[in-house]
Amino acid sequence: MISPVRWDGERLVLLDQTRLPADEVERRYATWSEVAEAIRSLVVRGAPVIGVAAAFGVALGARESRATTFDGLLADLETAIKGLASTRPTAVNLFWALERMRRSCLDHRTLPLDRLKARLLEEAEAVLQEDVAANRAIGSHGAALVPDGARILTHCNAGALATAGYGTAGGVIRAAHAQGKVHLVWVDETRPVLQGARLTAWECVKEGIPHRVISDGAAASVMARGEVDLVVTGADRIAANGDTANKIGTYALAVLAKYHGLPFYVAAPFSTIDPTLPSGDLIPIEERDASEVRNFGGRQVAPTASPVFNPAFDVTPAGLITAIITERGIFRPPYNFSR
Amino acid sequence: MISPVRWDGERLVLLDQTRLPADEVERRYATWSEVAEAIRSLVVRGAPVIGVAAAFGVALGARESRATTFDGLLADLETAIKGLASTRPTAVNLFWALERMRRSCLDHRTLPLDRLKARLLEEAEAVLQEDVAANRAIGSHGAALVPDGARILTHCNAGALATAGYGTAGGVIRAAHAQGKVHLVWVDETRPVLQGARLTAWECVKEGIPHRVISDGAAASVMARGEVDLVVTGADRIAANGDTANKIGTYALAVLAKYHGLPFYVAAPFSTIDPTLPSGDLIPIEERDASEVRNFGGRQVAPTASPVFNPAFDVTPAGLITAIITERGIFRPPYNFSR
Repeated sequence: MISPVRWDGERLVLLDQTRLPADEVERRYATWSEVAEAIRSLVVRGAPVIGVAAAFGVALGARESRATTFDGLLADLETAIKGLASTRPTAVNLFWALERMRRSCLDHRTLPLDRLKARLLEEAEAVLQEDVAANRAIGSHGAALVPDGARILTHCNAGALATAGYGTAGGVIRAAHAQGKVHLVWVDETRPVLQGARLTAWECVKEGIPHRVISDGAAASVMARGEVDLVVTGADRIAANGDTANKIGTYALAVLAKYHGLPFYVAAPFSTIDPTLPSGDLIPIEERDASEVRNFGGRQVAPTASPVFNPAFDVTPAGLITAIITERGIFRPPYNFSR
Repeated sequence: MISPVRWDGERLVLLDQTRLPADEVERRYATWSEVAEAIRSLVVRGAPVIGVAAAFGVALGARESRATTFDGLLADLETAIKGLASTRPTAVNLFWALERMRRSCLDHRTLPLDRLKARLLEEAEAVLQEDVAANRAIGSHGAALVPDGARILTHCNAGALATAGYGTAGGVIRAAHAQGKVHLVWVDETRPVLQGARLTAWECVKEGIPHRVISDGAAASVMARGEVDLVVTGADRIAANGDTANKIGTYALAVLAKYHGLPFYVAAPFSTIDPTLPSGDLIPIEERDASEVRNFGGRQVAPTASPVFNPAFDVTPAGLITAIITERGIFRPPYNFSR
């Protein structure tokens, strides 16, 4: 199974996603600040796996701590949590995982410090294992929505690499493929960071899933030719009303799917839902560096003097989403996640 | 004035658009087959200027000919015309310009051969001059559609570089900018060949037009934020019913403009209209090499094993086009170009 994150007994091991598909390079991390930098620089990306990596980051922060009291350890953990929280603003799984680790620490405050540190590592391992299980459930629920001979369009990477393994939107595709239902996956290259061309295509090659890579601008054309049956993407944060933040370009696909009469599905673990935000306009949208758009592969693309606007995510209104697929089942509009 | 094409007295001079914006390199061409290769490899691109370059290609074919009779010269010209016609299938201006050169040759069959060759060069010069004049008229007509303080979104490059100078969609922007109406131009980077980021942004820098470069997937987001007032693009071929082929990604913008209640304008010289095609589904769409999507700047993007679909153009149905701006005035639906 493709997994971008694992614990080797001493250190967190991440598959460096900035090097794919050309090189499969693993990197090892022994401190929370190294993990924060790995998240910030996209060595590891994808909302669910950011949460997993951050959980291990907190566990590493505990191991690093030289505190001799619980309060001292907690203070060190809060520093790690704050540092990890500052890496990426949009994916809510990050904050969810950090809060879970904080809660675990507080819940086990009576343990001796070395046992508490071991407990935090177990908690991070649990976050990882639960994510894989959630993805398999998402895949199973989602595959039921996929017709035989399906031509599926997806954006960015919400596959095994974006999670602890298996994938969300990628999990739906994997499960449907295992059932023999997938005729073709259209892979949007997903500028500017090209997670589709680099990562989703790499996963499809690894698993023998038939696919074709297209530039993002070609998706509408493929729909107009009648060569798409459904669209499925992941999510970085889902507001209480169903509005969904995901990789820039997702909202365009939702509008295009509606225009062409195609179902548009979002697949995400339940932890992606942020019940504290009533609607999507409140989701903070990360703006990343202009260099992602201005340069590529060491080559200058746009003139140095040209300003760039580089939002990493957009928000798709709930009304454009046919269904949201979670490990707890399939939700349909009007969205109510309190069941 | 930015011009990608000129005659230096002996050879055709093209600004190598594959090298922009990093390097401004001129290349000189003395044979029709070199010009054909320059068109094929995108040294020169953009429907109107492809027509201009092809016209000079035919004039070069005449100069190359060692025929001593009119019929011999005509046979050599037909070889050049056939070779030039095989370079790019979608832009109709190419075929229009080649036919105009053939017609000019036939119309002057009684001239001595050296004078006939000089006449063909004059005809190519006329194609160039008329294109600039048409662009200025397009700009003047189109600017009237641009409101004060306009935020204009454009795709690909339909600017001075795509024409003999000034531009079509770019001409509308230039003319509106000269009138002080342009607050901002949103420049779609336009994958896979990045004509927006490389060429349109370069033109904006050269002329001091305020602009911001975005990845193609961000256009919908910018519209949703209420930061676009109109969309204007060029065209590679317009069918008799107004259906318009243009750079891949244009159709998505037209759907998105409709969804957001924004006007979507096409700007093109009248020679872009192909009265022989009743509708857009008959326009041949060039599929370009997978390497444009799979690699970039010498770096591997998608896995070698991943198939790619790389259509260079898409077709926007007439019903999504608010108006078509030509040098003969502004056409609105239902489109009738026979006036």
